[in-house]
Amino acid sequence: MATQMEHARNGIITDAMRVVAEAEHQDAESIRERVARGVIAIPANVNHKNLRFGGVGEGLRVKVNANIGTSSTFPDIEPELLKLDEAVRCGADAVMDLSTGNHIDESRRAIIGHSPVMVGTVPIYEATVEAIKRHGAVVDMTVEDLLSTIEKQAKDGADFMTLHCGLTRNAIERLRKEGRVMDVVSRGGSFLTGWMLHNDKENPLYEHYDELLDICAKYDVTISLGDGLRPGCLADATDQGQISELLNLGELTLRAWDRGVQVMVEGPGHMPFDQIAANMKLEKQLCHGAPFYVLGPLVTDIAPGYDHITAAIGGTMAAVSGADFLCYVTPAEHLALPTIEDVHDGVMASRIAAHAADIVKGIPGAKEQDLAMGKARKILDWEAQMKLAIDPEYAKKKRGARNPEDEGACSMCGDYCAVEIVNQYMKK
Amino acid sequence: MATQMEHARNGIITDAMRVVAEAEHQDAESIRERVARGVIAIPANVNHKNLRFGGVGEGLRVKVNANIGTSSTFPDIEPELLKLDEAVRCGADAVMDLSTGNHIDESRRAIIGHSPVMVGTVPIYEATVEAIKRHGAVVDMTVEDLLSTIEKQAKDGADFMTLHCGLTRNAIERLRKEGRVMDVVSRGGSFLTGWMLHNDKENPLYEHYDELLDICAKYDVTISLGDGLRPGCLADATDQGQISELLNLGELTLRAWDRGVQVMVEGPGHMPFDQIAANMKLEKQLCHGAPFYVLGPLVTDIAPGYDHITAAIGGTMAAVSGADFLCYVTPAEHLALPTIEDVHDGVMASRIAAHAADIVKGIPGAKEQDLAMGKARKILDWEAQMKLAIDPEYAKKKRGARNPEDEGACSMCGDYCAVEIVNQYMKK
Repeated sequence: MATQMEHARNGIITDAMRVVAEAEHQDAESIRERVARGVIAIPANVNHKNLRFGGVGEGLRVKVNANIGTSSTFPDIEPELLKLDEAVRCGADAVMDLSTGNHIDESRRAIIGHSPVMVGTVPIYEATVEAIKRHGAVVDMTVEDLLSTIEKQAKDGADFMTLHCGLTRNAIERLRKEGRVMDVVSRGGSFLTGWMLHNDKENPLYEHYDELLDICAKYDVTISLGDGLRPGCLADATDQGQISELLNLGELTLRAWDRGVQVMVEGPGHMPFDQIAANMKLEKQLCHGAPFYVLGPLVTDIAPGYDHITAAIGGTMAAVSGADFLCYVTPAEHLALPTIEDVHDGVMASRIAAHAADIVKGIPGAKEQDLAMGKARKILDWEAQMKLAIDPEYAKKKRGARNPEDEGACSMCGDYCAVEIVNQYMKK
Repeated sequence: MATQMEHARNGIITDAMRVVAEAEHQDAESIRERVARGVIAIPANVNHKNLRFGGVGEGLRVKVNANIGTSSTFPDIEPELLKLDEAVRCGADAVMDLSTGNHIDESRRAIIGHSPVMVGTVPIYEATVEAIKRHGAVVDMTVEDLLSTIEKQAKDGADFMTLHCGLTRNAIERLRKEGRVMDVVSRGGSFLTGWMLHNDKENPLYEHYDELLDICAKYDVTISLGDGLRPGCLADATDQGQISELLNLGELTLRAWDRGVQVMVEGPGHMPFDQIAANMKLEKQLCHGAPFYVLGPLVTDIAPGYDHITAAIGGTMAAVSGADFLCYVTPAEHLALPTIEDVHDGVMASRIAAHAADIVKGIPGAKEQDLAMGKARKILDWEAQMKLAIDPEYAKKKRGARNPEDEGACSMCGDYCAVEIVNQYMKK
């Protein structure tokens, strides 16, 4: 079976490309052409049957991912399925199952089975948890453990997979030499780093990259090249470790494309606001225009409880500067496993960032929504305003709670509504 | 009595300058020098007795203002005093009393009496409400009504006042000629526009500017030159109306400085993300480096309920590009008068934006906070993390709710905490 990329290179416009073209108000042939070049990915595992196709990359609407999944502290699957529903209801374009609790296989299968949007996984999590169960320690995981987990998750229908293939001994050595405040904060990156240092071996995902590509090609899994050395605090941003890994990701991107495998590249992380644009340009250049998938970036370290906001600030700048896909960050980041309310708030904040960038990038249909809202506000059409809101239910609730009587204006200005006053005098 | 600016020009370092210098970890003489040039304002009415002095402008920490005040729908003063307390507790550097409910005088006096931070007012609100009571209509307000309200509020101790002095007939005419989706959305701007068009007269705040300056000089009120024609939706940003008013504000800035009166200039508003930097540079250039005070900017129109986030996104970009003072926007914006919770959320979001910009601008002490947080996270020191958080109480609550047992890591990663794993292997 050919991947979307292989089809595209053979000049074939697939159903997936047609769906993406329609959703994006663009021409199907131009989608095909960008999939062929790799600058658009359509993560769509051949075994994810109920998937509503979506595209990520150049010229497309900026997409939003919501992380869900169990942890050892909260191992139940049911709450995570409710979070999946909530994320989709709030407009998430993708979810990632990051489960590390018990029943990882069941959890993933349930999420893929339920999800109408693309599903991503991080196989190293399951491989690690299984290795601890089987061998007693992460560092005793075998290469076979890891590859078989990847194959199993591919077969289950994962549309994209975070694989930290660029986290090499050399990159770790550069990081150690320069020194870092927080070392490695990526969970997958930390498992691999521990494994590599303990066993004194190269990263198996790097050494066995061709085998990974074979698995990905077979099921059309999009590789999301993980950034295991992403900065975990502002002071660590744009350093030797981060950028050497990115150099590796650029090489690995070309190797995946040669094999017909779709690629996304993952990026930071914690980063001062003024470094974001340069980092986006750097990725686009070094990784040959591959779609860029960022976590945040968080523009300050000191706002636990509000990291959906720090991520929305950085995410807007990132998306304006080239990022194609925003991984949400919830208010629970750095504190706890998110609740369903956190999922809601996280998706909304990221969608706002994505939309603010879509306006700037001239994505078809984006600024038209804002124009319609402006017009509705001008004539104080509250019904239209609520419909046009990014979260109509929440906006209605908030207005309803504080506007017991007045129908025309709102309780902020009451009788002294600027819009009402000016409408009397500015007739054209 | 001399204003801070006049003292500064006379080479005198006042108590206020000394307090500002200490708070900002800077040299008092360099504060004096910038106050003399007008690029720093220290809004400090001689009659605001319990004021903790604060500075706004070049090289200083970006400041945050919280709007409070009654409306005709919610006329009680008590809830507004609770909001004042909450705003100050959350770290607001200023509050503005925007009351338009009954008892406007009492409300303002209570707020100034209670407030340890600088207090701003918008006298046109009271003048308008009084004019309606006295004459039956806004448009029947007399120039004397307006000037006497300004004098009264100055005498009461308002540290700064929004005065829409640059909103001229010419600017309105340019706006009308070009056409706008939302016309005038500033409340003060709408009162004045209505008055000017109805009476076919020039803006009294423009025509009687010298008298205003005399009042402001007498009490050392800082004029906050209002942007009555700020864009109310993205489509109206950076247009003929907005920029002609800004040209006027540049001239009026120089006239105020000639009279020894401190100035801030107010700015947008709703604005696409990519227009923000240019707007900040334009203001700084046209207004000769006067401190810039922005409302938002909101980077999308479609997020009612989340406008603290749309404002934090725009506010960060604005502050990085030169804005000195951020007016908070609460989640209630466009929907209702804010509750105390909205005040809390609004101040926090703006403080995050201000801090993210302080880091980029190299404000003394800013990035050091983030570095301390990174170090606390590295050693999983939760007590220190909570202390360093921008909102310790909220962070503690959020962590406590979802971490019933585990003391070391958090419930997001549980047993598989990246930080714990790497700490085992990355000993240097």
